[in-house]
Amino acid sequence: MNLKVNGLDDLDLQILDILIKDSRTPFLEIARQCHVSGGTIHVRMKKMEDMGIIKGTKLIIDMPKLGYDVCCFIGIYLDKASCFDDVLDQLKAIKEIVELHYTTGEYTIFIKVICRSIGDLQNLLMSKIQAVTGIQRTNTFVSLFQPIDRNIAINVLDKEEEK
Amino acid sequence: MNLKVNGLDDLDLQILDILIKDSRTPFLEIARQCHVSGGTIHVRMKKMEDMGIIKGTKLIIDMPKLGYDVCCFIGIYLDKASCFDDVLDQLKAIKEIVELHYTTGEYTIFIKVICRSIGDLQNLLMSKIQAVTGIQRTNTFVSLFQPIDRNIAINVLDKEEEK
Amino acid sequence: MNLKVNGLDDLDLQILDILIKDSRTPFLEIARQCHVSGGTIHVRMKKMEDMGIIKGTKLIIDMPKLGYDVCCFIGIYLDKASCFDDVLDQLKAIKEIVELHYTTGEYTIFIKVICRSIGDLQNLLMSKIQAVTGIQRTNTFVSLFQPIDRNIAINVLDKEEEK
Amino acid sequence: MNLKVNGLDDLDLQILDILIKDSRTPFLEIARQCHVSGGTIHVRMKKMEDMGIIKGTKLIIDMPKLGYDVCCFIGIYLDKASCFDDVLDQLKAIKEIVELHYTTGEYTIFIKVICRSIGDLQNLLMSKIQAVTGIQRTNTFVSLFQPIDRNIAINVLDKEEEK
Amino acid sequence: MNLKVNGLDDLDLQILDILIKDSRTPFLEIARQCHVSGGTIHVRMKKMEDMGIIKGTKLIIDMPKLGYDVCCFIGIYLDKASCFDDVLDQLKAIKEIVELHYTTGEYTIFIKVICRSIGDLQNLLMSKIQAVTGIQRTNTFVSLFQPIDRNIAINVLDKEEEK
Amino acid sequence: MNLKVNGLDDLDLQILDILIKDSRTPFLEIARQCHVSGGTIHVRMKKMEDMGIIKGTKLIIDMPKLGYDVCCFIGIYLDKASCFDDVLDQLKAIKEIVELHYTTGEYTIFIKVICRSIGDLQNLLMSKIQAVTGIQRTNTFVSLFQPIDRNIAINVLDKEEEK
Amino acid sequence: MNLKVNGLDDLDLQILDILIKDSRTPFLEIARQCHVSGGTIHVRMKKMEDMGIIKGTKLIIDMPKLGYDVCCFIGIYLDKASCFDDVLDQLKAIKEIVELHYTTGEYTIFIKVICRSIGDLQNLLMSKIQAVTGIQRTNTFVSLFQPIDRNIAINVLDKEEEK
Amino acid sequence: MNLKVNGLDDLDLQILDILIKDSRTPFLEIARQCHVSGGTIHVRMKKMEDMGIIKGTKLIIDMPKLGYDVCCFIGIYLDKASCFDDVLDQLKAIKEIVELHYTTGEYTIFIKVICRSIGDLQNLLMSKIQAVTGIQRTNTFVSLFQPIDRNIAINVLDKEEEK
Repeated sequence: MNLKVNGLDDLDLQILDILIKDSRTPFLEIARQCHVSGGTIHVRMKKMEDMGIIKGTKLIIDMPKLGYDVCCFIGIYLDKASCFDDVLDQLKAIKEIVELHYTTGEYTIFIKVICRSIGDLQNLLMSKIQAVTGIQRTNTFVSLFQPIDRNIAINVLDKEEEK
Repeated sequence: MNLKVNGLDDLDLQILDILIKDSRTPFLEIARQCHVSGGTIHVRMKKMEDMGIIKGTKLIIDMPKLGYDVCCFIGIYLDKASCFDDVLDQLKAIKEIVELHYTTGEYTIFIKVICRSIGDLQNLLMSKIQAVTGIQRTNTFVSLFQPIDRNIAINVLDKEEEK
Repeated sequence: MNLKVNGLDDLDLQILDILIKDSRTPFLEIARQCHVSGGTIHVRMKKMEDMGIIKGTKLIIDMPKLGYDVCCFIGIYLDKASCFDDVLDQLKAIKEIVELHYTTGEYTIFIKVICRSIGDLQNLLMSKIQAVTGIQRTNTFVSLFQPIDRNIAINVLDKEEEK
Repeated sequence: MNLKVNGLDDLDLQILDILIKDSRTPFLEIARQCHVSGGTIHVRMKKMEDMGIIKGTKLIIDMPKLGYDVCCFIGIYLDKASCFDDVLDQLKAIKEIVELHYTTGEYTIFIKVICRSIGDLQNLLMSKIQAVTGIQRTNTFVSLFQPIDRNIAINVLDKEEEK
Repeated sequence: MNLKVNGLDDLDLQILDILIKDSRTPFLEIARQCHVSGGTIHVRMKKMEDMGIIKGTKLIIDMPKLGYDVCCFIGIYLDKASCFDDVLDQLKAIKEIVELHYTTGEYTIFIKVICRSIGDLQNLLMSKIQAVTGIQRTNTFVSLFQPIDRNIAINVLDKEEEK
Repeated sequence: MNLKVNGLDDLDLQILDILIKDSRTPFLEIARQCHVSGGTIHVRMKKMEDMGIIKGTKLIIDMPKLGYDVCCFIGIYLDKASCFDDVLDQLKAIKEIVELHYTTGEYTIFIKVICRSIGDLQNLLMSKIQAVTGIQRTNTFVSLFQPIDRNIAINVLDKEEEK
Repeated sequence: MNLKVNGLDDLDLQILDILIKDSRTPFLEIARQCHVSGGTIHVRMKKMEDMGIIKGTKLIIDMPKLGYDVCCFIGIYLDKASCFDDVLDQLKAIKEIVELHYTTGEYTIFIKVICRSIGDLQNLLMSKIQAVTGIQRTNTFVSLFQPIDRNIAINVLDKEEEK
Repeated sequence: MNLKVNGLDDLDLQILDILIKDSRTPFLEIARQCHVSGGTIHVRMKKMEDMGIIKGTKLIIDMPKLGYDVCCFIGIYLDKASCFDDVLDQLKAIKEIVELHYTTGEYTIFIKVICRSIGDLQNLLMSKIQAVTGIQRTNTFVSLFQPIDRNIAINVLDKEEEK
């Protein structure tokens, strides 16, 4: 299994897999499932955090229930390919942007934004994103419905490939 | 503040905000920060889970460090607009797909996939995604670099709007 | 003035112009402004209705205030260019469609729809429009903001051209 | 029925519905159909006008019969996303533009224009629209035929949803 | 027949039709076919030339046999929509351009060019067309084969419509 | 001069050049300009016709003055690339098509059509072109204005290159 | 240097580098440049051939001088994403195709072809490529001029990165 | 056979064909296959090198095995069509670019690059290609799999055409 080149063994992956399914699982419960002591789990978690493999946890919130109804992807065309760094700095200050990718294909920058309503989206585009120096134009895709939102299942994949 | 229409008060939002920043914060620590008892936090958490506002937690993993180097967005064109449900069922079985959106704009379906290498991506596209009955063609955007990956900061936004 | 080829004179155009500005103007008020009798207005109105020039009146409603927040344009690609008539018949039965154009350019059919929310739009696209036999795919443009919505000012235009 | 959040009751909607079908219906006739007094209709109309729900009326004219043969949609690309306000001010002065939308998708601005002939359209594009400072290029879709032009039927829709 | 509004009668159209089929037909032969005198043909031809309806004749040459192998259509994007006149003046001086259209759709200017070889086309694009101030980029469609090249058959069309 | 490989000499080219400028120039006038006898012109013309270099002549008509106001280019997408021959046969029967090209770039087939009005264009597209079996969709570019329409100047070009 | 993971050392790379510049360099000359014996070169070459790193050599021919004037890239759209294998088998039999790639972006298949003339290209597209079952349409880019055609300089790159 | 216009005879073509298949074939082996002396082969090779028909040889290397996993095509849009020469000079200095074409179609410049990984590609695009003055934006197509990579078979083609 080529994951081992990163210094991870099966126990590490098993721990990751349990936490991917539910990041609030108590360490003792993880220990029980893995047939090791709670101290071992602590040691492994710390190692994976030190290695930067585990970067933290994230609450999964039903944004529409909080009134954030509109999720969009926005492809961004720059004035010139060379103004990427400048544009990135300005976009970092816009809180509605939750993901920003530098991509192949038609757009140089591709972002994901979350906001409350069509009115908010208008405001976000006109007053914030399109006011950024260096952005020529944007192309917005509104997500009307999102039936899949999940983490990739690490362990399962590896087992599959070990065979 | 129009969030109150959903039956949430400022304490609920404060709890959410703390958990959004670090979903592993112990309840007692949350209680301390909010100047309420740990029992209150339990009650509120249960309420928000029952309301479906909190859907769970998600570990933030450095996928490239686990060997998952390639993150892509794939726009999908269907044979006919009407075969959406069929295609969705088939795509749900493909584990590398972590998000699936039904969108306005050029593509009917827009997905996010994570895989290990260019070779894995070829295999994913040729043997899995493009083998799905009802998919006419796909357009893949490879994410070369992702400098922003964060949750929207709920509390901050609301404060801003209350003024 | 080449409008006269249609059998309209300046009085007809003046009446049209007044009604274009406010279609509820009483006939006596129109008569006063045009320095003719109310009966003349009746005669002219009837003539223009018989000629099919005046087809009726339309209330201007603030749709967002009624809860219809989302106005979209949708470009439609057909399976085959020849199934236009069939598709048109099916689209006529969808009440959210307020305009349908047969256009040059990329789309064969171009429609304008009005609905209540992003959720309604998803339903409209998935369950109604994309369920139409003969539609291959659609491209939706959401109107975020509409600062101009007016009739063309007939009289003014003509005066301008007479000079 | 969620329309009630805007302070409208069934009688208001019934009045709107009648006027949507024919905005020239006399108030007494509306009163008769609704089984209330003419005075009530006046009160309700005034309330809906004060609330800004009824913004006026619009004559439906057969533009081709008046010699206005050409209806087009024009997608506009700006030099820079940030010059929207400037461009909007200049476009407001062009009388042939009857609708202007700020949209998601490929174009920042999307307009509907009505003019007399292909020759007029050339003139409109070359001397007026493309002379606007801040417009980089345009994409024109000519409407060859418009088989649907109607208001959305409010009452009917609501009844349907109440069930 | 609405052609008569231009002051043409059936004899004029019959003459045009004969000349459209073969512009070298001697006047006496035209006269014979139309059952009128040669003098009548001269009078009618002069009238149609004076009216600007007949603008001249054009030899149909097999360009590939003369070594002109490459016929292309080129869509031109301008820096700004407003520099059309300037660009047009510069393009008029390029002899390989045989048609230039101002068009709806994606391109502002659409031209047809004829040249000798792929090498000539490269030279034409790089040294002549793309050197024009005000042209941002071009999109070239090479005609590989042209199975239809003809005039519209006027008379036939009209007969058809008279029925 | 590489045109000589086709068996043409300078006299042939001079004759072509005169006829390209005005295809109705009498043979005696051509002979005078070329300083040869009229018989020589006849011999050369016959040779060039036999070689298929001169294919005929074409009247240049001001189509808008005849009421043919609308000139369009139409890009055609086929159901399958392999149905080209079938589609070509059907398109040959549509008289409004004056040019048909098989092209590189986005469209397989690219045609030029001439018709009387927007109404005629609608009819042409809906009842004739889009009724052709094997056509999936079309993209129409309306020519609003055509400031260049000319033959390539053969002689001039050659002189230029001889230097 | 991470190339060593493949079992190659600096001598191997030096040999490759010399052969990349001129694949006909005699082994003795390579040996002299590397300060090793000819036998060592033989051993290393054999190793790299056995490892499949060196797959052979290729003559660099000036195709236009042999009459192959036209080099094109062709993007291919399939009927369905799933017919890739079938289409590939058919395309392998077309000798003018010198490269075939399975790509991200708009096209599923992207090929490079070389042929003699515009006429040959027409024939190649119409009779061979577009006759392939499973190909819906193609988009051809003609290379008018190719100022760069070279191998990547392995050694230089590595040195650069070693620093 | 029209290749003879270039002064090549069947023996020359036979030699080319053998070398195209394996450019390391010893001259004596070529001589044996062609039934001529080794000296003749030397004379012919020298002639074809002097004519510039044979420009050298190229090693075929399995780039992925050397760690060069990522092969891409990149379409380049320029700020202005006229800055081609400037951009070309800058691109020549980027070693990862192995082919550069000036093309018809959407892109002015079309390049092929080879690099080691997605990370290298990001660096190549952001720090090298998009830093070039005169480049507005790029569109990258990643080759996921290349099942065809071969020279065109000259002899075979010609034989085929001789029949």
